[in-house]
Amino acid sequence: MSLELLTLTNPVFKSYTFWTGVLVIKMLAMSLLTAIQRFKTKTFANQEDLMSPKLKVKFDDPNVERVRRAHRNDLENILPFFIIGLLYTLTNPSAFLAINLFRAVGISRIAHTLVYAVVVVPQPARALAFFVALLATAYMALQVIAAAAF
Amino acid sequence: MSLELLTLTNPVFKSYTFWTGVLVIKMLAMSLLTAIQRFKTKTFANQEDLMSPKLKVKFDDPNVERVRRAHRNDLENILPFFIIGLLYTLTNPSAFLAINLFRAVGISRIAHTLVYAVVVVPQPARALAFFVALLATAYMALQVIAAAAF
Amino acid sequence: MSLELLTLTNPVFKSYTFWTGVLVIKMLAMSLLTAIQRFKTKTFANQEDLMSPKLKVKFDDPNVERVRRAHRNDLENILPFFIIGLLYTLTNPSAFLAINLFRAVGISRIAHTLVYAVVVVPQPARALAFFVALLATAYMALQVIAAAAF
Repeated sequence: MSLELLTLTNPVFKSYTFWTGVLVIKMLAMSLLTAIQRFKTKTFANQEDLMSPKLKVKFDDPNVERVRRAHRNDLENILPFFIIGLLYTLTNPSAFLAINLFRAVGISRIAHTLVYAVVVVPQPARALAFFVALLATAYMALQVIAAAAF
Repeated sequence: MSLELLTLTNPVFKSYTFWTGVLVIKMLAMSLLTAIQRFKTKTFANQEDLMSPKLKVKFDDPNVERVRRAHRNDLENILPFFIIGLLYTLTNPSAFLAINLFRAVGISRIAHTLVYAVVVVPQPARALAFFVALLATAYMALQVIAAAAF
Repeated sequence: MSLELLTLTNPVFKSYTFWTGVLVIKMLAMSLLTAIQRFKTKTFANQEDLMSPKLKVKFDDPNVERVRRAHRNDLENILPFFIIGLLYTLTNPSAFLAINLFRAVGISRIAHTLVYAVVVVPQPARALAFFVALLATAYMALQVIAAAAF
């Protein structure tokens, strides 16, 4: 049975795979976004990164730090989703529900980045994006625990 | 063979799945713990999060920073466990050993959070909790490397 | 079919498993490297970690912070590789290409740590190591998205 669950003929796995790929690309893009801000503001954290002898290492540029906070928030929320989404897929959930949960996580985490680190949007935009993904991930985790506990 | 390894009829996978679900919930709870400390101490890192024009962004509250250090320690230790526990399960290990290793990681990481970020307990409480999970994870990783290398 | 893909008789999975095990060990070693720097420079972030009443908590030692930046860079880059490498394996890619991509990620991330946190090497050493792993991971993610989208 787990045989078919991890193939792309399973629409749940197909959706999980798609959104995981998209979110990995989104996370890797955060490094480039950080680099852009570092060069724009000439904020480098290491001596060997300074491109001119006049520059000094700097750690507190607000534009760089904002992108770094958004990136860390990704580590805290997207990375646990990656494993729990896979285990949730292996519990053979309703395709309709599972696909919409994955979609909710994917879209809300992209929105979270946009309103946090690209164009700053007043609250509760970021809080909403954050909680949609958090609640969807927590729901999957509870389903996984229930499937494994009984 | 891998067919049965990733089903809940395999007691090793069942245990891995259970503890992974529990640790995902535990990690997500760190965000809420951070938020509680932020509101308690009125420490917000973004301009758009300030709920009163009198507040300023603040980055150095010791209570907030303590929870954030505990959370980062989770990222460093629990996230690698998630993938290595899955690969270790696929090496078809002794059920007795594997289940106790997963239990050791799960319980010691919960203890780590409690003594670090909930009620501060003198050392070596946190160091012990840290090393139990680290050693169990490193043992699994070495077993996985050995299985793949030969 | 996914049956054989996740067994060590599949050379792609074997290679993925090997390099994932190696990189988990490498990541866990970062904690020890941080601890060594903390003891060397007597830089402790928590009151309960101070081993002498004369010491104070300290957050800005450059040697400790350098290892911590390298460790965080691992979280940002190696952890997404873990999941995308697994999903890429499940797309049944060319063994030659896949094995060399995993090797590229494994070797370049070890090099990244060496030139960042062990012996500081002038740029572009670290940038090169960083981009090899990033591009290999991004390529795998795009292949995974393409496989899932069509």
